[in-house]
Amino acid sequence: MNRRQIAVLGSTGSIGTQALDVIRQHSDVLSVFALTAHRQVDLLIQQAREFLPDTVVIADESKYAQLRDALHDLPIKVWTGADAIAEVAAAESVDMVLTAMVGYSGLQPTISAIRAGKAIALANKETLVIAGELITQLAQQHQTPILPVDSEHSAIFQCLVGEKNSEIDKILLTASGGPFRTFSAEQLRHVTKNDALKHPNWNMGAKVTIDSASLMNKGFEMIEARWLFGVQPDNIQVLIHPQSIIHSMVQFKDASIKAQMGMPDMRIPIQYALAYPARLRSDFVPVDFMQFHQLTFEQPDTQHFPNLNYAFEAVRQGGNMPCILNAANEIAVDAFLHDRIGFQAMSRVIEHTMQAVPFVAGATLETYIQTNDEARAKAIEFIISIKN
Amino acid sequence: MNRRQIAVLGSTGSIGTQALDVIRQHSDVLSVFALTAHRQVDLLIQQAREFLPDTVVIADESKYAQLRDALHDLPIKVWTGADAIAEVAAAESVDMVLTAMVGYSGLQPTISAIRAGKAIALANKETLVIAGELITQLAQQHQTPILPVDSEHSAIFQCLVGEKNSEIDKILLTASGGPFRTFSAEQLRHVTKNDALKHPNWNMGAKVTIDSASLMNKGFEMIEARWLFGVQPDNIQVLIHPQSIIHSMVQFKDASIKAQMGMPDMRIPIQYALAYPARLRSDFVPVDFMQFHQLTFEQPDTQHFPNLNYAFEAVRQGGNMPCILNAANEIAVDAFLHDRIGFQAMSRVIEHTMQAVPFVAGATLETYIQTNDEARAKAIEFIISIKN
Repeated sequence: MNRRQIAVLGSTGSIGTQALDVIRQHSDVLSVFALTAHRQVDLLIQQAREFLPDTVVIADESKYAQLRDALHDLPIKVWTGADAIAEVAAAESVDMVLTAMVGYSGLQPTISAIRAGKAIALANKETLVIAGELITQLAQQHQTPILPVDSEHSAIFQCLVGEKNSEIDKILLTASGGPFRTFSAEQLRHVTKNDALKHPNWNMGAKVTIDSASLMNKGFEMIEARWLFGVQPDNIQVLIHPQSIIHSMVQFKDASIKAQMGMPDMRIPIQYALAYPARLRSDFVPVDFMQFHQLTFEQPDTQHFPNLNYAFEAVRQGGNMPCILNAANEIAVDAFLHDRIGFQAMSRVIEHTMQAVPFVAGATLETYIQTNDEARAKAIEFIISIKN
Repeated sequence: MNRRQIAVLGSTGSIGTQALDVIRQHSDVLSVFALTAHRQVDLLIQQAREFLPDTVVIADESKYAQLRDALHDLPIKVWTGADAIAEVAAAESVDMVLTAMVGYSGLQPTISAIRAGKAIALANKETLVIAGELITQLAQQHQTPILPVDSEHSAIFQCLVGEKNSEIDKILLTASGGPFRTFSAEQLRHVTKNDALKHPNWNMGAKVTIDSASLMNKGFEMIEARWLFGVQPDNIQVLIHPQSIIHSMVQFKDASIKAQMGMPDMRIPIQYALAYPARLRSDFVPVDFMQFHQLTFEQPDTQHFPNLNYAFEAVRQGGNMPCILNAANEIAVDAFLHDRIGFQAMSRVIEHTMQAVPFVAGATLETYIQTNDEARAKAIEFIISIKN
């Protein structure tokens, strides 16, 4: 059997490094064709020397010389720039592209890979948040499977294996609720980035950890689910499940529910996507139901965490509105991580930006690019205004 | 589309009447070809007049004349006797046979239906408990699907749709634990049949309700699962889950778990089997996770409920041992239901009978018939001995 050739876009991030763990464990069936990173050149060099890919790409051109020199003794192609990432994702030998970059930067390489007919292991949620309609249409047109890597969407995907999407009644999207789930408005006022970044159930990057604490992440996942599974927003219910053992559920027309569970270990859904449709034996720790002997559920608190409502509003409106939501949130989280605004102000940035940027109904890739720039500018403007 | 022609064996019992509820709701796709009953002739007459099947059969020959006379104005064939049930199950126009008789009597008609190449909706668990190896081999040979109706096996079956059985790591078979789950040995000593028969999570017949309270039912289900899904007993774990919302789970090689959930309503798994692979929209009440906001798990208490261990022992030994287990239990439950022995004595009857009846390794249908008779005799003998 030929090993599956994988282009790992964003190999130095949290998902990227865990994907390489999986590939290392299953080198009999999985192999690395390309590695790309934004600017973490030292780790990229180390990964390239271990996995010996055909090509490595560093997005940040100022790091190119260092990368090239460090790998000059190896038969590895060394490229740089955003266009090079899109190009390597479409290379002929690639069987699957893992899109594990953070934020908006994932959009163009994903489109490039789909156009080249590559299977997509989708870990970049912003791609579907911004351009879900475009991406899913394109994937259908090029008959490329989109295999979700996010644990929730992997759960839904796994529940739907062998089932018909037309028989879905609703999707039950579970959420840990984050570290501030039980906080009062007053407590939320004093939350710092360090409070948000410690003790997540999942091992994730800083941006996603903040998004989880604010329920923005769950809002994005709802938008993703809407596109990945062709389900209307009104048929997606968010359920707080603090133990993070049930990763999501699907309720069918006959009132039967299927759920997927596991320990909160991102390598499980990553491996499922990379090896799909095979399930590979692994040393992942299984759920011990004597330890997790109580699984609980609550309604999400959208009064204290309004971002979830903004996400429903954005996807119901459609057009460029989810793109505005995402751009405003990227700016807001960045400002929060740099101690420029408080936790609750992030929601105000989003609310304001969704009102400030003109709505465009039938959004194209060009609209998304323009909307993204405009929304970021409006969000920054608003942050400056509330600081003064 | 042709409506699926179903032979409902055991139409007057708990599963049979609920199956007719399902067929009534979905008469556009499901129809009744035959109805059979043991001796409840009045209900059988009423069902026949409503569903107008091709054939009705009453096992008890003393009720034949009453049945024939009551239906003389309708173009319905009226038969009697156990052989007639096996015959109608194999009739040419039958697409699917629902085997909903209680106990040992389900075995021969099931074999007859499989030999005739009919799809089986299996609700008679004793068939697989007694003769699991024989039945599953036969089904493979005749390429007939066996669709489990039991909620646990339906759950496992649903979790395995689109998956490979070879990728199963283990089956997590859930159990409510029954009404005496938290009882001490002393409390169990004073348990009556009325204590056992009231407040079950599920709407079932008396025999199954007692088997649930003693964990014998879960032992039988473990044996069924072993054969239905080709999983070794050591890879089946029984988990007490008092809310009866998760109907069972499958853990795969990659530590991913799939679970099927629903309200404890037998019509959901019955409908799934009858309409498989379609899921029909129904008015079944879905799970409200705000009501069932806490799902819990415990280890089964095999010290107070040893029947589960006897079942593991019986299936590990194989041969005629599960047949002995089942026969001894049928006699024990009957004695308990007639106030002849206490709750705990049921286990002693089983233990004694498993030791008293000679073990036969490569059991055939003839061995099962002989073993069944012998085990029942030994169990009765033992009950008489402890009464004196």
